[in-house]
Amino acid sequence: MTGSGYDPRIMIPRYTPDDFAQLWSPAEKYRTWLEVELAACAALERAGIVPEGVAERIEAQDLTLDPDRIGEIERTVKHDVIAFLTHVEELAGEDARWLHYGMTSSDVLDTSLALLMVRAADAITTRLDDLVMALTQRVEEHRRTPLMGRSHGIHAEPTTFGLALAGHLAEVKRGRARWRAARDEIAVGKMAGAVGTYAHLSPEIEADALGRLGLEPETVATQVVARDRHAVYFSALGAIAAGIERFATNVRHWQRTEVGEAEEAFTVGQKGSSAMPHKRNPILSENLCGLARIVRGAVVPALENVALWHERDISHSSVERMIGPDATATAAFMLDRTTRLVKGLVVYPERLDHNLALTGGRCFSEGVLLALVRSGRPRQEAYVVVQRAAMAAFEGKGSFQELLAADEEVKSAMSPEQLAQCFSLDHAIRHADAIIDRVIAAP
Amino acid sequence: MTGSGYDPRIMIPRYTPDDFAQLWSPAEKYRTWLEVELAACAALERAGIVPEGVAERIEAQDLTLDPDRIGEIERTVKHDVIAFLTHVEELAGEDARWLHYGMTSSDVLDTSLALLMVRAADAITTRLDDLVMALTQRVEEHRRTPLMGRSHGIHAEPTTFGLALAGHLAEVKRGRARWRAARDEIAVGKMAGAVGTYAHLSPEIEADALGRLGLEPETVATQVVARDRHAVYFSALGAIAAGIERFATNVRHWQRTEVGEAEEAFTVGQKGSSAMPHKRNPILSENLCGLARIVRGAVVPALENVALWHERDISHSSVERMIGPDATATAAFMLDRTTRLVKGLVVYPERLDHNLALTGGRCFSEGVLLALVRSGRPRQEAYVVVQRAAMAAFEGKGSFQELLAADEEVKSAMSPEQLAQCFSLDHAIRHADAIIDRVIAAP
Amino acid sequence: MTGSGYDPRIMIPRYTPDDFAQLWSPAEKYRTWLEVELAACAALERAGIVPEGVAERIEAQDLTLDPDRIGEIERTVKHDVIAFLTHVEELAGEDARWLHYGMTSSDVLDTSLALLMVRAADAITTRLDDLVMALTQRVEEHRRTPLMGRSHGIHAEPTTFGLALAGHLAEVKRGRARWRAARDEIAVGKMAGAVGTYAHLSPEIEADALGRLGLEPETVATQVVARDRHAVYFSALGAIAAGIERFATNVRHWQRTEVGEAEEAFTVGQKGSSAMPHKRNPILSENLCGLARIVRGAVVPALENVALWHERDISHSSVERMIGPDATATAAFMLDRTTRLVKGLVVYPERLDHNLALTGGRCFSEGVLLALVRSGRPRQEAYVVVQRAAMAAFEGKGSFQELLAADEEVKSAMSPEQLAQCFSLDHAIRHADAIIDRVIAAP
Amino acid sequence: MTGSGYDPRIMIPRYTPDDFAQLWSPAEKYRTWLEVELAACAALERAGIVPEGVAERIEAQDLTLDPDRIGEIERTVKHDVIAFLTHVEELAGEDARWLHYGMTSSDVLDTSLALLMVRAADAITTRLDDLVMALTQRVEEHRRTPLMGRSHGIHAEPTTFGLALAGHLAEVKRGRARWRAARDEIAVGKMAGAVGTYAHLSPEIEADALGRLGLEPETVATQVVARDRHAVYFSALGAIAAGIERFATNVRHWQRTEVGEAEEAFTVGQKGSSAMPHKRNPILSENLCGLARIVRGAVVPALENVALWHERDISHSSVERMIGPDATATAAFMLDRTTRLVKGLVVYPERLDHNLALTGGRCFSEGVLLALVRSGRPRQEAYVVVQRAAMAAFEGKGSFQELLAADEEVKSAMSPEQLAQCFSLDHAIRHADAIIDRVIAAP
Repeated sequence: MTGSGYDPRIMIPRYTPDDFAQLWSPAEKYRTWLEVELAACAALERAGIVPEGVAERIEAQDLTLDPDRIGEIERTVKHDVIAFLTHVEELAGEDARWLHYGMTSSDVLDTSLALLMVRAADAITTRLDDLVMALTQRVEEHRRTPLMGRSHGIHAEPTTFGLALAGHLAEVKRGRARWRAARDEIAVGKMAGAVGTYAHLSPEIEADALGRLGLEPETVATQVVARDRHAVYFSALGAIAAGIERFATNVRHWQRTEVGEAEEAFTVGQKGSSAMPHKRNPILSENLCGLARIVRGAVVPALENVALWHERDISHSSVERMIGPDATATAAFMLDRTTRLVKGLVVYPERLDHNLALTGGRCFSEGVLLALVRSGRPRQEAYVVVQRAAMAAFEGKGSFQELLAADEEVKSAMSPEQLAQCFSLDHAIRHADAIIDRVIAAP
Repeated sequence: MTGSGYDPRIMIPRYTPDDFAQLWSPAEKYRTWLEVELAACAALERAGIVPEGVAERIEAQDLTLDPDRIGEIERTVKHDVIAFLTHVEELAGEDARWLHYGMTSSDVLDTSLALLMVRAADAITTRLDDLVMALTQRVEEHRRTPLMGRSHGIHAEPTTFGLALAGHLAEVKRGRARWRAARDEIAVGKMAGAVGTYAHLSPEIEADALGRLGLEPETVATQVVARDRHAVYFSALGAIAAGIERFATNVRHWQRTEVGEAEEAFTVGQKGSSAMPHKRNPILSENLCGLARIVRGAVVPALENVALWHERDISHSSVERMIGPDATATAAFMLDRTTRLVKGLVVYPERLDHNLALTGGRCFSEGVLLALVRSGRPRQEAYVVVQRAAMAAFEGKGSFQELLAADEEVKSAMSPEQLAQCFSLDHAIRHADAIIDRVIAAP
Repeated sequence: MTGSGYDPRIMIPRYTPDDFAQLWSPAEKYRTWLEVELAACAALERAGIVPEGVAERIEAQDLTLDPDRIGEIERTVKHDVIAFLTHVEELAGEDARWLHYGMTSSDVLDTSLALLMVRAADAITTRLDDLVMALTQRVEEHRRTPLMGRSHGIHAEPTTFGLALAGHLAEVKRGRARWRAARDEIAVGKMAGAVGTYAHLSPEIEADALGRLGLEPETVATQVVARDRHAVYFSALGAIAAGIERFATNVRHWQRTEVGEAEEAFTVGQKGSSAMPHKRNPILSENLCGLARIVRGAVVPALENVALWHERDISHSSVERMIGPDATATAAFMLDRTTRLVKGLVVYPERLDHNLALTGGRCFSEGVLLALVRSGRPRQEAYVVVQRAAMAAFEGKGSFQELLAADEEVKSAMSPEQLAQCFSLDHAIRHADAIIDRVIAAP
Repeated sequence: MTGSGYDPRIMIPRYTPDDFAQLWSPAEKYRTWLEVELAACAALERAGIVPEGVAERIEAQDLTLDPDRIGEIERTVKHDVIAFLTHVEELAGEDARWLHYGMTSSDVLDTSLALLMVRAADAITTRLDDLVMALTQRVEEHRRTPLMGRSHGIHAEPTTFGLALAGHLAEVKRGRARWRAARDEIAVGKMAGAVGTYAHLSPEIEADALGRLGLEPETVATQVVARDRHAVYFSALGAIAAGIERFATNVRHWQRTEVGEAEEAFTVGQKGSSAMPHKRNPILSENLCGLARIVRGAVVPALENVALWHERDISHSSVERMIGPDATATAAFMLDRTTRLVKGLVVYPERLDHNLALTGGRCFSEGVLLALVRSGRPRQEAYVVVQRAAMAAFEGKGSFQELLAADEEVKSAMSPEQLAQCFSLDHAIRHADAIIDRVIAAP
């Protein structure tokens, strides 16, 4: 039996924040293993099983573990934890025989994995906080900056740029709340021995050791901590990534040449295309859309990891060694990039206005429809009247508002002033502040 | 623009509980739409926009909507909500023109979808409760029924059948807690108009209308309720399904001919194979493993649904029409089947005992190892001593305990009595009650 | 043991073509089972195992099987094939006892499933042929209709509308070639008995029976035909769906208000929005994007189905009962819808021209860059010169071409005529015909 | 715009064969880019666009590109190909300005990616060949070694160990055939400029350049080679991985303590468990099951990469940078490990015999059933007779054969000799050779 869920993966530098490269490094892994072994040893001492002072003496030696040496031993014993323990015995001497007393590898591995996944979670939560702050600021800035709302990519009714961002803010906040819950679910270790029965340990020793590490004990362990906890962790990451994908998709739309409403910051010296010097492309946003596929791609393997055989098999381990570092580091990278993108996003108010005017007021068609209904028209009849004018305008037969003004049915239903009132931008976005206040107040 | 997220799907009868066939039927869909329209209408009346009495008068007519007629109209207008409204106008007369006032289709569709998804959630929670009860009973029954614990399919150390079931119980309880959270996240409707700005409505009207329906308003809506809520709902279902898969996988192992420790109930008249009359197969469990793939298969499409364009596109709708009924009904079916499976599971204590004895005590090797460590041996040296005896026993050179008893290093480290004490089943499972009490007490 | 891979699923009418509703109906399923049993029986007769004339006599009775009666029997025996055989015995009398001789259920089920999947494949190939024809026609029509090419949603260099369609045509043709290969891989049946050993049959009998059905025998069967064949079939469907998604995504872009280059046909009486009478939305294309998620969602479950235990378990069956009809019918529906979309697509040449002119010639920047290189400038220096003018034009400081004409470095490198030649649309698209001829000629 | 589909990822050493670490290294990436640029340059020379001798002169310099320096430049220009070209200009001097003439980054990137993916494909095909050889040898060795066939984990009818392996051999061969097709589909480059129109190049130049590299031109390129080609490549890998998962799952079953029919080779010095010295676990097979999830996890992201916007967006690139190296290296690692596993697999014939005898002949029940049918009994009646004896035997009421021998209905239908003939192992596996010859002969 070897390993569990994480590895000295040297990750793709392009998409790995430094703290995550450090967190998932071999050195940090073995440091964490020793931390867990010593916490267990101290608890065993307090329980009178291991002689007093062992943990303290080893801790005092401040051992520097050598990943290469551990790798060398592993090539013979084909078991990473045994290789690690053998190396610790080499360095720490006789006391080391008390390490791992009554424990199985997974006691160390799963508890260590929990520590690393909790630390990854916290580092991601910090980034979610940053993104919330950045979005909040831009929401405030553009509370009442008018923006053409679009459904199906087609102009619908006006909204504000702040409201569009507020929707993303609300989604990030929801993702953060779920992430905190997932973090708590993974903050669970295990020191229950080979098949979770505490054959040579006890629930009390486990509670003592895990308590020192800031973890809860698994309710009912097998040889391992149950993998639904990990699956849920990766699912929560997948939802965060999907939310970023939604934002990035919108940036890509806003930046496209014909829309031009907002744009990723373009830095001095940057080049958009090797062939075409005129290009300024939303490459950060496109990159974020791709990375969302990667993070989402971890969800199903994590769910497939749940159904381990009997008291455990080790099929989950290789999966976790890869998706553990990859999905967390990629998500952290995505958050860093998104926060910078939000902060640097260049908004073009004149283009926003230009686009609002593009359909000549057709975006106010619903108001006219409702005015006709209020005047006594059945809804579907009123619909036909307004659609007729809109389609005529679409085909270039005149301005929408003028066509309506000339329509006999409209004239008989409302005064020119009443018709004009239907075309009020201020009226359309009068509730923007109330909505935005709601999301700002949300946890 | 048409529809959103659910449909008169007549689902696969084989895997659809009756209540879910009813829940996702066309009739129920249109009934729910009307319920939503009338709640909105009543709120608009209180706000003084719609004349008083409209909602009450329509409600009093107790309309029977005809799905076929609506389908007929939809073939012309290519819009399901307009078809529905047109049909209501046909039946309810002039008052109907006040329905849908200021609303967009998604106000009706997403609010209705929330109602149906909440009802599906509640029907699934009830089933989770049933499964918790069934498992609890069997856990109690088998608290101390000894079972050989296995890692990697290989005999490890003893545990109890109750403990094995307790692990599944703990997982189902975790799944239920997450499911409740997912249910609350989806209990969110929306009456904010075409792009979520309340252009012709107000937050107050929405709160009033949704409150009558038992729903919260979306914090910041676009044209639709944000789809991360739905994605999380399907992810939570996927985790529940994965937990069932783990249980079903274990049943399949327990039942296999060479193991024979537990078996699905085999009913009178049942036939196991068309070719081989002797067969009794764990087909329910295998079926559950397959269905878990289906429920899990909904997770990625649901996550892909999140990144809608601008204020919405309708790509999510067809996905939801299919996975909405399918994933919920299949999960409900899985829970029903699992509960029956748990209740009927036949346990064979004599086979449990037989298998415990199969390796001649090798499952107690850790105790011997630790006794050697306590006697002063370095851990890795002690390991070699015990492994040597175990491998010799594996190769048929004698019983493990006897080989150890004859080993010079063992003899020098402990008395025959001390060695014998290492082979105690009672000692191995002495904490079973404590662990089981923990999961029984868990929420 | 029950069933395999398909079921009397009454599918979602909205997305199911009639021929697929028929293909996957209960009646058709049982008809196919009988077809397979009779083919086997006839082969067994020729082999001298079954008395002559049995198959012919049963065939002559032209039995009408009653799915409800079979369902009734299945509720007792819990085995669908035994229920079917029992019903056939009820109808066909004594001769029926020779049916299923030496066979296991999977001999019938997997052979029948192959027949249905082959028929589904052929029905899909016909639709791929239709789509190829429709695309070919529109490609020819728009061979030289200029279109602004875009990378990253940003104007790049000119191309033609025919070329854009030609890319989709090439992809559909590749999908069709793969689909034919997948069809041949699934055209494999099995009559090898309980564990694939022909214990009571023979390879010769199998070859004879399958040959009558147009199928090949599985090279090495277990109890079932190997599931990698099915996985590859669904993967090939997933790739076809992804190609349609790419096309539909482009239609959505072309139709968006600010682009307006092409549009889904809008039919008489159609209504775009229940709230906004002015809307014309690309809902067919959005729907296709959603359905692609569904078809793609079948791929992973199909791959998970491969690793059956030992000589088989039945976990694959429930998966196939659902994804078999769903993925094939949905893909067929997508193809029908896409073909209609292609045929009806309204192209607006004046908008194409308008958009081509939008950036004032910046789309020709590469030609200027290369002219500078030819004049002796190092490439990266030349890049800076051209980018400078493009960014100034972007910021509204003048037309790109004029800014270049006034640039000292440009002036020193080329004559005004040479500069002007860089801005030739005809030159940019001069190879369109050659490329299009290539795809038209492709198989 | 930056990069495409691969990256200096330093991959997880644990699961990366050396040749794949080399193939996907930064140095190899840039070497391949230069190879492509020079092939293009040579073709441009022959076309008279670039002065003669440039490519040859640069080639003669045998440049050593410095990935760190390129990284440094990229941090300013934010474009990897421009950084690369700038570095080549630094090293190669004035001639370098002719590189990349008329090309866009993707001409280099996608053509290079094709070269690397083809090389990865070939390295995987070689491994598939090795696995085919290893399996073939073990199939031959165990052609007639009897093995209890199992469906649903329950004893069914006898087969042979060679046949079980032959099923895997057939599947690997199918995977290899598909892989060769996928390899040919990806052996496609592109030198068609910014939007695939050859604005400054020509189909002839492209054909010349790609021909030197052993690649075909993309039929209709956009800015990039179409991504359905890549999706199909990863799907084919996913199917190979799923086939390995099936084999590894079977090894896990064969090795489990109660079965004990075959076992992974256990090497000298290996340790099975840190807690339990007696353990010998099928960890290689479990690891292979986990890695299959990883390779399969690349399929959906690859399919999501297909629907790029307009003439391309860059969302696919980050996905390919990660799944390109990961999925190919992991698959190669899986194949290496599987081949070693097959070669070293220890088979225990005495356990095979022991297990065959376990059910006291119940595995021959079908033969008795058919004998009863031949004697004139209706099939379902005969079924009841045989099932009755089998269930009595299962409940310990006697041996299956003896119970049948004592059954009045059996006695009236056949002689004791006829009954005995039903219990022949030789008869059961008489076609093993014929089936195995079929798979050996398969391509």
